[in-house]
Amino acid sequence: MKLIIALTLMAGSLVALAQTNSLSSTNQLGSDAKSARSNVPGQPYPKIDSERHAEFRLRAPGAQRVQLDIGGHRYDMTNNDQGVWSVVTPPLVVGFHYYAIIVDGVSVADPASESFFGVSKMMSGIEVPSPGEDFYDAKNVPHGEVREHWYYSKTNSTWRRCYVYTPPEYASNLTARYPVVYLQHGAGEDECGWSTQGRVNFILDNLITEGRARPMIVVMDNGGGSALFAPGARGGRGPGPAGVMGAPAGTNAPAMASAGTNQPASGRFGLMSAATTRFAGTLLHEIIPMVDSTYRTIPDREHRAMAGLSMGAFQTYQIVLTHPDTFCAMGAFSGGAGGITNLTTAYNGLFTNAEAFNNKITVMFFSMGTAENLAATRNLDKLLADAHINHVYYESPGTAHEWQTWRRSFYQFAPLLFQNP
Amino acid sequence: MKLIIALTLMAGSLVALAQTNSLSSTNQLGSDAKSARSNVPGQPYPKIDSERHAEFRLRAPGAQRVQLDIGGHRYDMTNNDQGVWSVVTPPLVVGFHYYAIIVDGVSVADPASESFFGVSKMMSGIEVPSPGEDFYDAKNVPHGEVREHWYYSKTNSTWRRCYVYTPPEYASNLTARYPVVYLQHGAGEDECGWSTQGRVNFILDNLITEGRARPMIVVMDNGGGSALFAPGARGGRGPGPAGVMGAPAGTNAPAMASAGTNQPASGRFGLMSAATTRFAGTLLHEIIPMVDSTYRTIPDREHRAMAGLSMGAFQTYQIVLTHPDTFCAMGAFSGGAGGITNLTTAYNGLFTNAEAFNNKITVMFFSMGTAENLAATRNLDKLLADAHINHVYYESPGTAHEWQTWRRSFYQFAPLLFQNP
Repeated sequence: MKLIIALTLMAGSLVALAQTNSLSSTNQLGSDAKSARSNVPGQPYPKIDSERHAEFRLRAPGAQRVQLDIGGHRYDMTNNDQGVWSVVTPPLVVGFHYYAIIVDGVSVADPASESFFGVSKMMSGIEVPSPGEDFYDAKNVPHGEVREHWYYSKTNSTWRRCYVYTPPEYASNLTARYPVVYLQHGAGEDECGWSTQGRVNFILDNLITEGRARPMIVVMDNGGGSALFAPGARGGRGPGPAGVMGAPAGTNAPAMASAGTNQPASGRFGLMSAATTRFAGTLLHEIIPMVDSTYRTIPDREHRAMAGLSMGAFQTYQIVLTHPDTFCAMGAFSGGAGGITNLTTAYNGLFTNAEAFNNKITVMFFSMGTAENLAATRNLDKLLADAHINHVYYESPGTAHEWQTWRRSFYQFAPLLFQNP
Repeated sequence: MKLIIALTLMAGSLVALAQTNSLSSTNQLGSDAKSARSNVPGQPYPKIDSERHAEFRLRAPGAQRVQLDIGGHRYDMTNNDQGVWSVVTPPLVVGFHYYAIIVDGVSVADPASESFFGVSKMMSGIEVPSPGEDFYDAKNVPHGEVREHWYYSKTNSTWRRCYVYTPPEYASNLTARYPVVYLQHGAGEDECGWSTQGRVNFILDNLITEGRARPMIVVMDNGGGSALFAPGARGGRGPGPAGVMGAPAGTNAPAMASAGTNQPASGRFGLMSAATTRFAGTLLHEIIPMVDSTYRTIPDREHRAMAGLSMGAFQTYQIVLTHPDTFCAMGAFSGGAGGITNLTTAYNGLFTNAEAFNNKITVMFFSMGTAENLAATRNLDKLLADAHINHVYYESPGTAHEWQTWRRSFYQFAPLLFQNP
């Protein structure tokens, strides 16, 4: 069973793993290219044109070889006579991609880009515009707040940080109470991911303004696994490529995606499983009571959901389906089928009574990007349909194990939540 | 007058500019060394021992030369037979230091460190413990929140982000109203600096719990100048060193410190001055009204202060001393004397009537680190004392134009504020 779950979760990583090839590129940047919005202020490159070719540049007169590492490929960059290295990529997939520059074999962040915590280190990221798809943009609508909240955890004997989204009206409507979604990041990421890379606050601001989602609180905490791809982590790949000490080769492989298929599944899976067990206790016994006593929540099962991506999806399956008296809804994004291959035995027989399940778990949502391995989730979709279990299965067109899949997934998921008063 | 102000502001940068020398180091790391708390999860290096030697490591088997760039020095790193480069520094000054690794001439962030926006790009940072000095630590006290707040600016025609610290009791005491400090970052940094590098939320949590500071709201907005050291900025140094396109040589020179003394002062000063004019309008006509209508402030002059570091100190002098009907208090950290060399002519004669000034500006605080050039502020201290102008001048022992100076400055400043009901 463990092995099955692990292989399912790792299936999505095949695209990202196709990265040992080194390519040259003869693409041209269109004249309509604009600076990426993920650049730091004042940096013109990377630039992206309307066909989604992107040009990256780095001034490195003393380097012997410079490569761009993005989307599962390494592109050789070319040195002009001034020591400026550059490359224009083939059209990139829309959305947010981690990337790195490899300078004489060392994988580093591009100094021209903002940095984002992914793959257990600070990565560069590029935001590739998606024409006609603006649900995650900051629009001219009322905006909620994302609050950095610190609280003491007795079981962990430490102060912990979470981020809490409060909807636009929260600060002015002081008597209203709100439902809550607990929303989890992937392995190698942390509690910053959903608001920074995921833009979940803007997604909800827009949905709430349009009347398509109920105003809700979102709690983003640290589910563990942040160091899963760091050198000391058990199950890591050992020394491998240069850069951080013993970091994984897949610099642009986010979340679970770096877990290799050529190693025993038990290594990283064991760590992830242990992280989930620890986090489940913290969530159920500390975070939820803390949130219910600090924020104006509706503190009952019918107004409490959990969702997550990749490792966070694994945690969502594990926690919600073993605690249906605590949560009424779940969303598992790019987390495969949560190990569910047999509805009779899965999760202590929770699925054996369709009517009881449908009354209890009002939203069972799971999703994948179509560039991920879809076998397990399509199988689960069929199993649940055959058993008359209410569920929603969503596939994000053309996207892989990446943030665009997860933004779209949350955008599909949030309107389904808390339809009862 | 302009030139005098510019040279005063740049005086603090001399320490940081002494960085073109390349040093070898024969220091040894003590056996009590621990991983820096500024490392990303799972990264053992950098490590710091009790004498504040720090060891940095990078795996780079293909590199020809690797250097550490920190505190105004470049240290050659040594390659072991496994491709791991390392160096142990002489004892570092306590507090937070930006740093970079130079790989074959390219200045990049250390993949083992968290990244922080400084010098117009994402920099590595190392937190060097300061024995007996824990006022900026997260302690077992009630914690306030830092809220990411978005608002639309008509004059800038854009959505803007600020961070707002609300004190611990803000969320539970729903009828109380609070005084406000507007707190500004330096050039090449942004609105994230004070809570991330500055830890201002923890400083206030601790002071409020001890009863040493009044509960207050802190608003941290973007004062411009974030791109001042980026390649396109007028007044920049041109191509210079490798890394980002045309970035300044001073990779570890924070805030104003990279403004060189060997260029006309008008370049960067002109940009900074223009940024201040723009920001003054945004602050006075948009940010303050927005904050007063959104948060439970006490919306009058007597409960409104402004402070800032480096460029933010320059802005504080400029804005508070020309708008004494809007603010009752000011704090200028590492900003020199705000151009004040003659009390008769400075700021339209504001200082000519000591009694009137003392009744109006209840806190006039300015500070420097003792490793900065102190001539201008010591002169101002004497001028004000001679004229019986109430003021507080603080020097941070042993620190330069860096965050430890500014943390300590805020720690000295905050208890002075809002002593009237």
